[in-house]
Amino acid sequence: MTADTITAADIRINARWVIPIEPANAVLEHQAVLVQGERIAAVVSRDEADARYRAKETIDLPNHVVLPGLINMHGHAAMSLFRGLADDLPLMTWLKDHIWPAEGAFVSEPFIADGTQLAMAEMLRTGTTTFADMYFFPEIVAQLAKDAGMRAQVCFPLLDFPTPWGAGPDEYLAKGEDFIRQWQDDPFIMPAIGPHAPYTVSDEPLTKAVALSRSTGTPIQIHLHETASEVADALEKTGKRPTARMAELGVLGPTTQCVHMTQIDDSDIQLLKDTGAQVIHCPESNLKLASGLSPVKKFREAGINVAIGTDGAASNNDLDLFGELNTASMLAKVVADDATALSAHEALAMATIDGAKALGRAHELGSLQAGKLADIIAVDLGDPFLQPVYDPASHLVYSNHGRQVSHSWINGVPQVQEGRLTRIDVPDLMLRVRGWADRIREQQTS
Amino acid sequence: MTADTITAADIRINARWVIPIEPANAVLEHQAVLVQGERIAAVVSRDEADARYRAKETIDLPNHVVLPGLINMHGHAAMSLFRGLADDLPLMTWLKDHIWPAEGAFVSEPFIADGTQLAMAEMLRTGTTTFADMYFFPEIVAQLAKDAGMRAQVCFPLLDFPTPWGAGPDEYLAKGEDFIRQWQDDPFIMPAIGPHAPYTVSDEPLTKAVALSRSTGTPIQIHLHETASEVADALEKTGKRPTARMAELGVLGPTTQCVHMTQIDDSDIQLLKDTGAQVIHCPESNLKLASGLSPVKKFREAGINVAIGTDGAASNNDLDLFGELNTASMLAKVVADDATALSAHEALAMATIDGAKALGRAHELGSLQAGKLADIIAVDLGDPFLQPVYDPASHLVYSNHGRQVSHSWINGVPQVQEGRLTRIDVPDLMLRVRGWADRIREQQTS
Repeated sequence: MTADTITAADIRINARWVIPIEPANAVLEHQAVLVQGERIAAVVSRDEADARYRAKETIDLPNHVVLPGLINMHGHAAMSLFRGLADDLPLMTWLKDHIWPAEGAFVSEPFIADGTQLAMAEMLRTGTTTFADMYFFPEIVAQLAKDAGMRAQVCFPLLDFPTPWGAGPDEYLAKGEDFIRQWQDDPFIMPAIGPHAPYTVSDEPLTKAVALSRSTGTPIQIHLHETASEVADALEKTGKRPTARMAELGVLGPTTQCVHMTQIDDSDIQLLKDTGAQVIHCPESNLKLASGLSPVKKFREAGINVAIGTDGAASNNDLDLFGELNTASMLAKVVADDATALSAHEALAMATIDGAKALGRAHELGSLQAGKLADIIAVDLGDPFLQPVYDPASHLVYSNHGRQVSHSWINGVPQVQEGRLTRIDVPDLMLRVRGWADRIREQQTS
Repeated sequence: MTADTITAADIRINARWVIPIEPANAVLEHQAVLVQGERIAAVVSRDEADARYRAKETIDLPNHVVLPGLINMHGHAAMSLFRGLADDLPLMTWLKDHIWPAEGAFVSEPFIADGTQLAMAEMLRTGTTTFADMYFFPEIVAQLAKDAGMRAQVCFPLLDFPTPWGAGPDEYLAKGEDFIRQWQDDPFIMPAIGPHAPYTVSDEPLTKAVALSRSTGTPIQIHLHETASEVADALEKTGKRPTARMAELGVLGPTTQCVHMTQIDDSDIQLLKDTGAQVIHCPESNLKLASGLSPVKKFREAGINVAIGTDGAASNNDLDLFGELNTASMLAKVVADDATALSAHEALAMATIDGAKALGRAHELGSLQAGKLADIIAVDLGDPFLQPVYDPASHLVYSNHGRQVSHSWINGVPQVQEGRLTRIDVPDLMLRVRGWADRIREQQTS
């Protein structure tokens, strides 16, 4: 081999294990991941890496598994400031007596900025490299994510009623269209349309949202079939199941992400399948709010893509997607009455390539393949209390917490190194969080 | 106040929060926990502690919540060496093709010793101070727990067929009686009788186990109603539900711990209630093996005591009881269709005082009250990614992992200090674990 066959690389990661996600179920041992610029250059044996690449920086991860960065497909990032504010309450008490008053009192540009940064810090620390957000002031979230070098799908809100971000549907849609135009070519930010739910958005704004989605090629994310009462109320008021109404309005389609999807019957499965709509599963929120169970195995068997999200920290109460995968994988088994319903590898795919599919970006995200964007994480399985390790995929899903994440890179840029965030000033963030917490505590007890 | 009112104490713990478990739902702020010898001397304000106590050692825990040590009421400790060996398989494939061959090849005194020590290390690190064990070579487990200063209920096994510990029921019972006599007065070790399950133990040995339990005052722990097929098979073979057969044989009673208890109907609830039997809930194992759902709210409403266990690491795959509490609390809500079904405080009680009740030791374990044994843990809620903290009980259950445990004491003796185990030589343990893992890996692939 001659010198002219040597290729330059920015980063070489020597990993004990690599789980590339594509091909499915693969666990590679003692491989090297090469990164050049913002992309993955190669995943090859150490020998091949020695022979073919010369890297500026080499990182040895002798007890670690390297995999694509996780994609958290649903959340309300700034609600991290309400983490654990009120639990163990019926949904409507929780919303009416706690969350809505707190939102009414505090949701503002600085609240969104600090809460989103807190959420991003926790997500980065626990292995998420891309998150989908649905809350208020999307322009703030988009700018913060970009500044932090984190990928985000950011929905603008759409509801029938006024909120701190707008007076009603027309203003949401007008501001939302501007938001889309501003961000649609950004490599980090994916603008999206966020009609809140079938019961909070009327047919007319939903129809306009569909038109906007089609004219701009922008995804829609909507809460759908979250609870039994949502479905029962819809049947009573409209004579239709929410999925049926959404299908009739054109809301369902391959670029639409349906979040929650509990209380599912065969007609719902058929509509999702026929339209190619995406399902976003939020198991911990569904359990904690007693919303219901999502039939993950049935969706998958029908060929429906299922990605995963944590939902907001107020209903979870953390943003650790590894914990969510553990719950998802265990829960899918008991719901399907089948211990093979969702394997560890399938769960990992749900949080990576299936998230990328839901975003319409599977060609460049969600697996460790040459040419894809370098969104990469490493998880340290060397911890004594994780021993022994027979199968790193099993450990990632069943024995692990996000805190074992040691490294991450987004677009080839380090975000976590040896467990520390590189781009968010955590002590400064904590001062701001403490300030909000004091005010929120006071408001709740007044 | 004069000098003669000053009481000596060994340890004073200044805690940001104390959750004493008794009284229920209490969160005390800025209190001191005093320990004298093996017992809790007092839980008082800082001022009262200053005025009334002089401690040899003071520990300041400014961001921490202090609570009773956790009680893990069901597991197979040494199976930690099989952690993640085989997942995502139907129960019988998992047992027949993986776990039973591995047990046949490896279960022996040294295997039990090293596997139990690995499990104890993980349990101590994650806040458990008392564990219930049901596996082989109970005399080894009892000695190791005592040597480590950890409290344990240790069952001797009882089955119809031979195992590495005995040739059959008569030998198990004879050896078991000796085991009980040897340990029954030990302050750390609670010997118990472990008939494996209704389908693996015949009426005669069960009847003898009941007699032994009554004559020695020893608890029984049994796997009961683990799966739908267990119940269906029993109905087919005996015409009775397993609970009904156990009740007829006298197995059910206040000193009997029924582990799993899925597939429950009203007759089961009535029998448990009438007999005062204990339920041990293992939610993660029930989910992961697709065993079924346990109706925790119904049990509690009927006045049946429900404690919690992780089950073995092979079906979980960790021994972190805080993670188990998170799952239990979320799952109870969706099973009961009620977000108030099991609150954070109730979940914490399940892992402390309700475990102590199941052991028959609520008079001296399970809450932070003067006179009880000093089994105490501290959890650091100062971590940036747990902020903000409005309610430490919520954080312990919904946002926490066992790794946030910073300190623990058992019988007043430190076991974890600043996150490090004080009494188990972890590097040495890791060498032994690696040796077993290599041999087990080889056996599985041969």
